[in-house]
Amino acid sequence: MIVVADNLRITLPVIGRAVERLGPGPIRQMVSACMHAGAQAIDINSGPMFRAPEKKMTFLVRTVQETVDLPIVLDTANPRAIAAGLAASGQKAMINGVSLEPDRLKRILPLARKYDCDIIGYLLGPDGHVPADAPGRMEAAVALFNKMQTAGISPERIIIDPVVAPLAWQDGNRQNMAVLEVIRTLPDLLGFPVRTIAGLSNLTTGAPDLDTRRRYQGAFLPMLVAAGVNMVLLNVLDPVLMRVAGSSQRITNGTVFSWQ
Amino acid sequence: MIVVADNLRITLPVIGRAVERLGPGPIRQMVSACMHAGAQAIDINSGPMFRAPEKKMTFLVRTVQETVDLPIVLDTANPRAIAAGLAASGQKAMINGVSLEPDRLKRILPLARKYDCDIIGYLLGPDGHVPADAPGRMEAAVALFNKMQTAGISPERIIIDPVVAPLAWQDGNRQNMAVLEVIRTLPDLLGFPVRTIAGLSNLTTGAPDLDTRRRYQGAFLPMLVAAGVNMVLLNVLDPVLMRVAGSSQRITNGTVFSWQ
Repeated sequence: MIVVADNLRITLPVIGRAVERLGPGPIRQMVSACMHAGAQAIDINSGPMFRAPEKKMTFLVRTVQETVDLPIVLDTANPRAIAAGLAASGQKAMINGVSLEPDRLKRILPLARKYDCDIIGYLLGPDGHVPADAPGRMEAAVALFNKMQTAGISPERIIIDPVVAPLAWQDGNRQNMAVLEVIRTLPDLLGFPVRTIAGLSNLTTGAPDLDTRRRYQGAFLPMLVAAGVNMVLLNVLDPVLMRVAGSSQRITNGTVFSWQ
Repeated sequence: MIVVADNLRITLPVIGRAVERLGPGPIRQMVSACMHAGAQAIDINSGPMFRAPEKKMTFLVRTVQETVDLPIVLDTANPRAIAAGLAASGQKAMINGVSLEPDRLKRILPLARKYDCDIIGYLLGPDGHVPADAPGRMEAAVALFNKMQTAGISPERIIIDPVVAPLAWQDGNRQNMAVLEVIRTLPDLLGFPVRTIAGLSNLTTGAPDLDTRRRYQGAFLPMLVAAGVNMVLLNVLDPVLMRVAGSSQRITNGTVFSWQ
């Protein structure tokens, strides 16, 4: 399992300001801390970037790549920002991502094909909503996987994100049990060992404090790992969570165990 | 999921001495602490009890039942001790347990039938060894389930324990992935919603310290809960572990979520 840092977010004021004035300091500090904490990839959550997306994404990608030698994930719905990020970074960038929403498919899939890069497909319906249940997620997964392949994306490049739901949603527990089921069964259903990714922080949207976030994320993370998820986006700067990630991996992987 | 305290063990010197001199104090103190910590049942791990098993088990059962109003689990391979425990406690006792070992089947199954009580079946081969892989565990489960029913045990009374393996075993991780698979798939395989139980403490046999035990048990417990285990035997006096148990249950159960 690959641990992807979800810490670099333009919504953090210190990062947002750094991007506005193209000042690399805070970004370097953040991704350097993520790498030392054990991140194996960096998600660049740049948001929609309505103004000057090319310039800002290019700056972000270059700053991250000058600081750490880790794969990057371009986390934005803005195709112009994605195009600029891919141009700046080359094959190490992953697109995050597309869904069945027609406009996204149309504008983003050609970029994935052009750069032959990994691309994350979110299990949302064409209307942008989360499917109601596990069968709905499975249907969305099959439809998305097929659409991506039809558009010329190699199945090896596709990573499915079943979209972790906030527990505080009315049917949050049920939704997240469906997330686990999708991760566990999708490779069989597709007849292809498609990779999967999950964003852990979303689970505790609305949680009252750090302790509560840790507690629920720390319980759901082993469930994701046991289900066979290939990548997890998480707060790598939380050492408690990183320990859970490490223990879960050592329990589930096939190599000889050591306590460490 | 039902949390069963595995804390009352005759191998603890204070408990062993109390049983020898039939002094209820330390036993009362222990099970009272377990109840306050959230135990929903008490495992009475009395060991083989070579001398005076009837007297000792009767004393243990009465002492526990006079102290807390919780179901009890008679955890011994000694049929004489089980018979005495069942006679002392009535229907609230559960037998822990039988396996495919012929002598155990022959001597313990009639007791389960006579008292119409719950009985745990361990997935060990007729030789008393853990099966080598998941298919071996499945085979043992089917064979045991059938033998128990043939002996007149109602399927509702059967609880299967796939036997958590110490991680430190050479193939400990693989064994425990098989444990999860058995818990997840056994009801489908048997065509009956058979209950399952897992003993968590066994996972960390040989671990160097409390922190390491917590860390690995705390990562494996959510995996067991997500797999659908019905009962877990664990150290209920570890508040960290009990928090993980609570969070895991709130994530996976079907009711409306609250952060608590």
